[in-house]
Amino acid sequence: MANQTLHILALAGSLRTDSYNRKALQFAKRVASEFDVTISEADLKTLALPVFNEDLRADGFPEQVVKLKQEIESADILLIATPEYNHSIPGPLKNAIDWASDKTNPFSGKVAAIFGASTGIFGTLRSQLQLRQVLASLNVELLPQPQVYIRSAEEAFLPDGSPADPKIGKQLRVLIDGTIKLAKLKKEKR
Amino acid sequence: MANQTLHILALAGSLRTDSYNRKALQFAKRVASEFDVTISEADLKTLALPVFNEDLRADGFPEQVVKLKQEIESADILLIATPEYNHSIPGPLKNAIDWASDKTNPFSGKVAAIFGASTGIFGTLRSQLQLRQVLASLNVELLPQPQVYIRSAEEAFLPDGSPADPKIGKQLRVLIDGTIKLAKLKKEKR
Amino acid sequence: MANQTLHILALAGSLRTDSYNRKALQFAKRVASEFDVTISEADLKTLALPVFNEDLRADGFPEQVVKLKQEIESADILLIATPEYNHSIPGPLKNAIDWASDKTNPFSGKVAAIFGASTGIFGTLRSQLQLRQVLASLNVELLPQPQVYIRSAEEAFLPDGSPADPKIGKQLRVLIDGTIKLAKLKKEKR
Amino acid sequence: MANQTLHILALAGSLRTDSYNRKALQFAKRVASEFDVTISEADLKTLALPVFNEDLRADGFPEQVVKLKQEIESADILLIATPEYNHSIPGPLKNAIDWASDKTNPFSGKVAAIFGASTGIFGTLRSQLQLRQVLASLNVELLPQPQVYIRSAEEAFLPDGSPADPKIGKQLRVLIDGTIKLAKLKKEKR
Repeated sequence: MANQTLHILALAGSLRTDSYNRKALQFAKRVASEFDVTISEADLKTLALPVFNEDLRADGFPEQVVKLKQEIESADILLIATPEYNHSIPGPLKNAIDWASDKTNPFSGKVAAIFGASTGIFGTLRSQLQLRQVLASLNVELLPQPQVYIRSAEEAFLPDGSPADPKIGKQLRVLIDGTIKLAKLKKEKR
Repeated sequence: MANQTLHILALAGSLRTDSYNRKALQFAKRVASEFDVTISEADLKTLALPVFNEDLRADGFPEQVVKLKQEIESADILLIATPEYNHSIPGPLKNAIDWASDKTNPFSGKVAAIFGASTGIFGTLRSQLQLRQVLASLNVELLPQPQVYIRSAEEAFLPDGSPADPKIGKQLRVLIDGTIKLAKLKKEKR
Repeated sequence: MANQTLHILALAGSLRTDSYNRKALQFAKRVASEFDVTISEADLKTLALPVFNEDLRADGFPEQVVKLKQEIESADILLIATPEYNHSIPGPLKNAIDWASDKTNPFSGKVAAIFGASTGIFGTLRSQLQLRQVLASLNVELLPQPQVYIRSAEEAFLPDGSPADPKIGKQLRVLIDGTIKLAKLKKEKR
Repeated sequence: MANQTLHILALAGSLRTDSYNRKALQFAKRVASEFDVTISEADLKTLALPVFNEDLRADGFPEQVVKLKQEIESADILLIATPEYNHSIPGPLKNAIDWASDKTNPFSGKVAAIFGASTGIFGTLRSQLQLRQVLASLNVELLPQPQVYIRSAEEAFLPDGSPADPKIGKQLRVLIDGTIKLAKLKKEKR
C-alpha cells in the first residue's frame, strides 16, 4: 500500500482559451510532474457542463457531470487554479463544484492545493478565501500555507510558461510538495 | 423627478422549477407590489445563459446576456433570493452576475435587497455574506439590516405562498420598505 | 433640521503611538474637516479599555466604556482606520467594538467610512471585509465603494502627513464626501 | 519518537466566569482525556493580558504574553472554544491570538480543533469561519469537518456538563479523535 502512486486531478476555473489561470495550471502541472504522481486534467471548456439545475438530473446526471464526478473520485489530490470575478469565486468554477458534489460527494477525504492568478494587485485573494470555505464544506483538506497569489497576471509568465517571479515558482513547489506529503500520510496511515 | 416610480428587478438564484427560493421570491414580489413600484423578474431558467466564457463575446455578447444587462440597467432596485450550495453562492447565480457585469457594470449605483431559503438550519447565512461582498464590489448598496434567513425551507411556506413563520413575512416587509426608501433618497437627492 | 451640522467620530484600531493607521486617520480627519462637519476622535490608547469581560459590568459599565458608548451615540458618522493582524480585524479594535455594543447598541442607524493601512501588499483587505460584516451586524450603513487600501504603509505617507500616492488622497475624499452625503440624506428624510 | 504523548492546550475565548464556551471547553477536555494525551488550559481570565499594543513590548513582552507564547509552543494541538460577538471573533480571543503571534509565531505547524457555543441559532458559525482564516494565516492545520456549532447555549448543557444534544458530544469526539490522529501523523512522519 505504502508505495501506491498518487493521482492528481488538475482543474482551472476559467473557460477562456488564453486564461492566465490555465497558464498557471500548466506550470503547476509541470512542477507536480517532478514528483512520483500521475496527473490528469479536467478541462471545464471541453467538459461543457450546463448551468446547474437539479431538474436536469431527474432521469440521471448529464453525461459530463458523471465524467467529472468520476475524475474527482479517482483522484487523491485536486490542484485548482482559480480566477476571481467580482471579489469572489468565478461562476464557472462554482458551477462545476456544485454539479460535481450534487447528491453524492466525491470530494470527501481528498486533499487540495489551490492558487490563482489575476490582473489586479490582489491575486485572487478573496476568491481563494471563499474557495477554502467551499472545499472545507466538502470535507477536503488543504494546507494552511503557503497561499499563492499571482498578481499582475498579464506580466506574470515567461514565454516558456514559467513564472516571471521566481518566488511564485518556489511557492508552488512548496505547496505541491507539502500537499503530496499530506495526501500520502492520509493514504498510508489513517 | 421626486415622484418617479421605482422599478424593481426580481431574481432567484436557482433554476429548479420547485425551488424554495423561487417561492420566496414570489412572496417577496407580492410584498413589494404593495408599494408604489413596478416589478419585473429575470428568470434564470428562461434566460438560459451559457456558462461564463469571455471567448463567447468575441463578436458581441450572447443575446441572453444583453437582455439581462438591459433588465438590470433599467431597474432601480434588485430583489435577490439566493440559495446556498456548499456553504457559498450558487454557481448559477454567480454565473449570471459574472455575465451581467462583464466589461460594463449595469449594477453600479443600484440598491439591492437580498434574502434566501435553505432546507438546513442556517438559512443561506454563508451565501448571503458572500453575496454582500460581491454586490459591494459592483457598487451596489444594501441595507445592513434586516438579514432574512428562511430555514427548514421545506416547511417554510403555506399553500398560499406566504411564510409559515409570520416573522419572516414581517422581516421581508421591513427589508423591502427600507430598501425602497433608500433607493428613493438616492434617486431624488444625490 | 435640514441644515444640522453632522458630527464625525474618528477611530483608529491601533494603540501604537507611531501606528500607520493613526497617521492615516489624521489625514482622513483633515480631509473631513473641509466639509461642513464637526469632528472628534476616540483614542483607544487614551481610553484604555479593559479586555472585554461581561462580569466587569455586573455593577455598571466601566467608566471608559460609558464614555466610548456616549461618543458613538453622539456621532452621525464613524470614520475608522483599521490595521490587519493575522488576516483579520485587530484584537484591540474588535475589543472596543464589543464593549461599545454590549447590552445596548449605540452604533445602530449610523453611517461609517472605513479604510486601512498595512505594511504588506494587501492593505488590510481581509480586515476590512470582516469589519464590514461586523458593522452590518450592528446596523451601520457603509458605501459599497470606494474601498481604500493603503499598502506598503512604511512609505505611504509624506512628512506632512498626506499620502505619497495621490490616488489614495482622492479615494479618501470620494469616500468621505459620499459618506457625508449618505448621512445627510438619512438625517433629513428618513 | 513514534509513541511520544501529544500535548493539548485548551483555550476558551471568553473571560466570563459562567461562559457557555468555558463549559463547552470543559466537556471537550473530558472527551480529549479519553485519548493518550496530556492536557493543559490557558485561561484568558487568569492570564489577564493587556489590550494589544506593540509599544508595550519595547523592553520585552509582558510576562503574561511570554507565558501564553510558551504554552502554545509546548503544545501539539490547540483546542479552542470560541464565542461569537457581533457576527465575528470575540475581541478577547483575537487579542490573545494577536499577542501570542506577535514577532514570533509559536502557532506555526500546530494542529487545531475549534468549536463554539452561542445563545442564538447560528452557534458561532461566522466566528468560526473567521477563526479558520486567522489560524490558516498562522500556519495552523484544521480538519475541514466536522464543524461543531452549539446553539441555544443556555439549554445546551446538562447539570453534569455534558451536552444535552448527544449529537454534539459525538461531533466533538469525532473532531478530537481526527485532530489527534492528524497531529500524530505530522509528528511521526513529516
